[in-house]
Amino acid sequence: MQLGMIGLGRMGANMVRRLMGGGHTCVVYNRSPEAVTTLSAEGAIGADSLADLVAKLETPRTLWLMVPAAAVDQSIADLAPLLDPGDILIDGGNSYYVDDLRRANALSAKGIHYLDVGTSGGIRGLERGYCMMIGGEREIVARLDPIFKTLAPGRGDIPPTPGREDRRGRTAEDGYLHCGPNGAGHFVKMVHNGIEYGLMAAYAEGFNILKQANIGKAEHAVDAETTPLRHPEHFQYDFDLADIAEVWRRGSVVASWLLDLTATALSESPELSDFSGRVSDSGEGRWTVQAAIDQGVPAEVLTAALYARFSSRGEAEFQNKILSAMRFQFGGHHEKPRT
Amino acid sequence: MQLGMIGLGRMGANMVRRLMGGGHTCVVYNRSPEAVTTLSAEGAIGADSLADLVAKLETPRTLWLMVPAAAVDQSIADLAPLLDPGDILIDGGNSYYVDDLRRANALSAKGIHYLDVGTSGGIRGLERGYCMMIGGEREIVARLDPIFKTLAPGRGDIPPTPGREDRRGRTAEDGYLHCGPNGAGHFVKMVHNGIEYGLMAAYAEGFNILKQANIGKAEHAVDAETTPLRHPEHFQYDFDLADIAEVWRRGSVVASWLLDLTATALSESPELSDFSGRVSDSGEGRWTVQAAIDQGVPAEVLTAALYARFSSRGEAEFQNKILSAMRFQFGGHHEKPRT
Amino acid sequence: MQLGMIGLGRMGANMVRRLMGGGHTCVVYNRSPEAVTTLSAEGAIGADSLADLVAKLETPRTLWLMVPAAAVDQSIADLAPLLDPGDILIDGGNSYYVDDLRRANALSAKGIHYLDVGTSGGIRGLERGYCMMIGGEREIVARLDPIFKTLAPGRGDIPPTPGREDRRGRTAEDGYLHCGPNGAGHFVKMVHNGIEYGLMAAYAEGFNILKQANIGKAEHAVDAETTPLRHPEHFQYDFDLADIAEVWRRGSVVASWLLDLTATALSESPELSDFSGRVSDSGEGRWTVQAAIDQGVPAEVLTAALYARFSSRGEAEFQNKILSAMRFQFGGHHEKPRT
Amino acid sequence: MQLGMIGLGRMGANMVRRLMGGGHTCVVYNRSPEAVTTLSAEGAIGADSLADLVAKLETPRTLWLMVPAAAVDQSIADLAPLLDPGDILIDGGNSYYVDDLRRANALSAKGIHYLDVGTSGGIRGLERGYCMMIGGEREIVARLDPIFKTLAPGRGDIPPTPGREDRRGRTAEDGYLHCGPNGAGHFVKMVHNGIEYGLMAAYAEGFNILKQANIGKAEHAVDAETTPLRHPEHFQYDFDLADIAEVWRRGSVVASWLLDLTATALSESPELSDFSGRVSDSGEGRWTVQAAIDQGVPAEVLTAALYARFSSRGEAEFQNKILSAMRFQFGGHHEKPRT
Repeated sequence: MQLGMIGLGRMGANMVRRLMGGGHTCVVYNRSPEAVTTLSAEGAIGADSLADLVAKLETPRTLWLMVPAAAVDQSIADLAPLLDPGDILIDGGNSYYVDDLRRANALSAKGIHYLDVGTSGGIRGLERGYCMMIGGEREIVARLDPIFKTLAPGRGDIPPTPGREDRRGRTAEDGYLHCGPNGAGHFVKMVHNGIEYGLMAAYAEGFNILKQANIGKAEHAVDAETTPLRHPEHFQYDFDLADIAEVWRRGSVVASWLLDLTATALSESPELSDFSGRVSDSGEGRWTVQAAIDQGVPAEVLTAALYARFSSRGEAEFQNKILSAMRFQFGGHHEKPRT
Repeated sequence: MQLGMIGLGRMGANMVRRLMGGGHTCVVYNRSPEAVTTLSAEGAIGADSLADLVAKLETPRTLWLMVPAAAVDQSIADLAPLLDPGDILIDGGNSYYVDDLRRANALSAKGIHYLDVGTSGGIRGLERGYCMMIGGEREIVARLDPIFKTLAPGRGDIPPTPGREDRRGRTAEDGYLHCGPNGAGHFVKMVHNGIEYGLMAAYAEGFNILKQANIGKAEHAVDAETTPLRHPEHFQYDFDLADIAEVWRRGSVVASWLLDLTATALSESPELSDFSGRVSDSGEGRWTVQAAIDQGVPAEVLTAALYARFSSRGEAEFQNKILSAMRFQFGGHHEKPRT
Repeated sequence: MQLGMIGLGRMGANMVRRLMGGGHTCVVYNRSPEAVTTLSAEGAIGADSLADLVAKLETPRTLWLMVPAAAVDQSIADLAPLLDPGDILIDGGNSYYVDDLRRANALSAKGIHYLDVGTSGGIRGLERGYCMMIGGEREIVARLDPIFKTLAPGRGDIPPTPGREDRRGRTAEDGYLHCGPNGAGHFVKMVHNGIEYGLMAAYAEGFNILKQANIGKAEHAVDAETTPLRHPEHFQYDFDLADIAEVWRRGSVVASWLLDLTATALSESPELSDFSGRVSDSGEGRWTVQAAIDQGVPAEVLTAALYARFSSRGEAEFQNKILSAMRFQFGGHHEKPRT
Repeated sequence: MQLGMIGLGRMGANMVRRLMGGGHTCVVYNRSPEAVTTLSAEGAIGADSLADLVAKLETPRTLWLMVPAAAVDQSIADLAPLLDPGDILIDGGNSYYVDDLRRANALSAKGIHYLDVGTSGGIRGLERGYCMMIGGEREIVARLDPIFKTLAPGRGDIPPTPGREDRRGRTAEDGYLHCGPNGAGHFVKMVHNGIEYGLMAAYAEGFNILKQANIGKAEHAVDAETTPLRHPEHFQYDFDLADIAEVWRRGSVVASWLLDLTATALSESPELSDFSGRVSDSGEGRWTVQAAIDQGVPAEVLTAALYARFSSRGEAEFQNKILSAMRFQFGGHHEKPRT
């Protein structure tokens, strides 16, 4: 099939490569032209403007947006006047599903079909394939099946799930799924990322506890501001975190792709000294928590993971000052200096 | 090699089978004799008492305890008088690592070597192999390498970790690891299980949010005790959780063995109606949190996962009553009846 | 001054009484007429419809809405056509401050002034006075100062705050405050209630731990599903919770009005057996957390308090079933029956 | 009565003053002699060694230890050989109640009575009185009633609790309470402090959210690493935190002594610029959480408050690095520099 890709960043460029590898034709556009040049050299048809891209696509067109969430509305505003009824516009980024509802509605008034596709896979998707969660009209999703099948990982050597015998042949086993009407794709992707935050934090906390397992070897101050370590003899272990991550990759309950990546990172740098520990969050974690709160369901773990990222960026500083100020007021406690 | 196995429950019996399959000789004992009979029929040498088991093993003996954590001390008390200096006693269960320190010390005084082996793998370990985290004397661990290698999963088709080139050949890649001196094995297993709790809770919360994605279709009461759902139109999705679990198994960031199991469970019963949601915890999660607190490091996610289990068993009831009592006192609020 | 009060529930009726006690004239309306009859007998001017109420007020009118958050928009829709430019409409309930922004804007177009007044005090406000957090135009707030002063607690015998010497005379010391433009009043009230949830949960958890301080006296099962209590001798205390709440009321760091109420509740019923522990939440806790998330600041305690309420209502059931299902899949663990 | 006080820090010295003001005789000792000199000038009998202090007390003696938790065991070891059967030794500091059990047992063998007295009140206790939670033998507690009554705040003008009519006359209303056998006093004090952490954190988080209420005025970057603020128009408030703390002191649900202190701190310095936000924890918060975990009850709020202190001291750094490392591995995400 033919597809227009807008946005050739880490994700978009590799998706084009995977599509071309699967025999599809890609017309590509990017705000900065270098990425267009690069992909043109690899066989894509370059476009130097949105209008050029639209002109180079046969109708009904299929266009895939792969731009930052904050830029999607502007991209749609720029594109919509150029499109014709029957065209399909896909947002493959990390949009808030609530925005999908609004956009699908607005585009529908012009006869344009809108799909929201949550796309997971990161920078390794070119080789592994992309896991896609799709929202929109069933017949439009079906029409683009060849695109999704090429981008998806396929069954590979992952063993089939017992109990799914009567569901064999569904696309979920190939790594893409029509989740429901508009917004459904990004809703599922949102929760996917919310879970991702929780999983990552679980590993991170665990490895931190392993790393601190030797604190019994250190000297500790004895004063009213410091809790003495009651049993230093219980914390005398110098663990090799890279080897522990590695051993868990085989046969343990906590084996996962995120653990594989952690093993790689710890092997490359056991102290992770390239990082400062200032962790971004790109929206889905927040929206997942907001959905839980709207629903009135507890999401302690996903929220704790989100807040840990906020704290990592120093956002708790003022509240910590309040604590120190209270302690000074009632107990005359002075802060201990950083050491 | 020859090994005596004490405790033939879910884990122990299958470990014997895997060992025999690897050419080792097993003498087996269990409190209730049926399991001994079963394994004898499969080639093990049965023992009808601890003394019988000890007598049937060549010295220096290797004995592996696979009994509940609460029964380990009694088992050691029963066994120790029967053993000789040079014998090796392995605790392969889920003991608290602090107990290992005490036990190793006591047994060392009698010349008996003690190993603590955290063993992960569950009921699928027979086929997949067991991931083992080992604490104790290096030379004793080395002597039992053939045992560990047979029990472990081996490299299988799991791709090697980039960056480990200079660590190739270490046992971590086969799924077992000498983690350090006594207690180290169970410390690492403890944290493994703590992480496991966190991972499980992350998935559980995420799937609950997906399940509640249709609450906008329900009617809601309008009164001062109930927060109205501001945007019912945002919660109109009927998701197929089994398909979502399945699609995430391929190419997504949240792929893991626990997700594979969740996909199986949801395929077998989308409502999970065989379960009531009363979740046990078997110790390691608690000990992990206690270690974090002793170390003074935050473990929000692992702790939230632990507390969710406590709450699932109704342990928050009195504190919830306090909240209701306060609300009644200051606001005259009556509890809403369960519906 | 003259004021029209709409909504004569727990809060509204007592506010009318306090206003009349302060020499103000109140015209009152309520959906069900009994409350109007009652207050008329106490000196208020009853109205049998919104139109009647509006007709009985001199222009420019001052109207105070004291209705559930979910009913405010309809009340405003009903009232607005009856009002004249220059009239003042106050929402004294627990509205979401975001709604205030919209309402103030819409009413402003008709020349109607809108104030949002977060009102704390509960059923004891008649005697204690009401703490008011006010948002809206400064001159309108100033014009209604006599109303606020009467409703507020006043300085009473609460000692002045050291360090406020240059702020003496501000209304904050009387218990009411113009917090900022529209929405500011409800924003501050929202955070007030968010904090309230956190404080309540802190006490509730603490008293639960005190209540469980005798669990070492109970028998415990020994099996692989249950963590043994390592030190039953540490949990042999039968505490008198009512006396503990009482002793903390004097001189302790945790003294507060909420503690006073807890002491009352525990004195009346040490087991709180009139309550089942199903705790409502009325919106502000959720909005506080959503504000924190929008701001990107961590609010672990306020969120944990909110989620505890969700869990108290059984909203975690499905996620707990997922945990049980996973445990069954990997470990063959069966749920323990409720006892 | 006559009492020997050991440890004349912030708490001990003022307790001596309050005791002398109530007509008691105090013999005082401190490691550094300046405090002894100061109090001698105010009427206390100074001692220049523990032996001197013991010699100056009539038998049976009453000795009160007011030293850091980490120094109690050494103090007892030094004192015990100097004491006689029948003497009473009080630990008034913040000891772990588990240590009380051990100490009481050891001293009991020598005929020495031991009391554990959790003492709240901080640096303001001299004027306000000290709230005391007492564990030990009933008759010993009764014998020292005059001491406790003097130290305690007394009824003051705090209104009696409704529902306690049949408990009038108990000491809880004076601000001291015999909570149970040894350890009970410090257990209750431990939970008191655990609650204190939770209350403090609730206020701190709330004030932080108020402080960030103007972030909609700031410019925000638009990139894939930053979640855009969806509604900057909702965050345009410049709140006066000191006035808000003040207004809540009167009539609101969140009024408390900790709020009074917060109002003072914010009045003195609205930005709290004397503090860096590095918050100590002195043990009781940790022990409270450990008790909850041993009991198997959830304490989400108290634990979140504890962890926030750990994080304030940078203890989450390594786990945050793990998160960044994972994000780099799967998404090629680079950390954003601190701004």
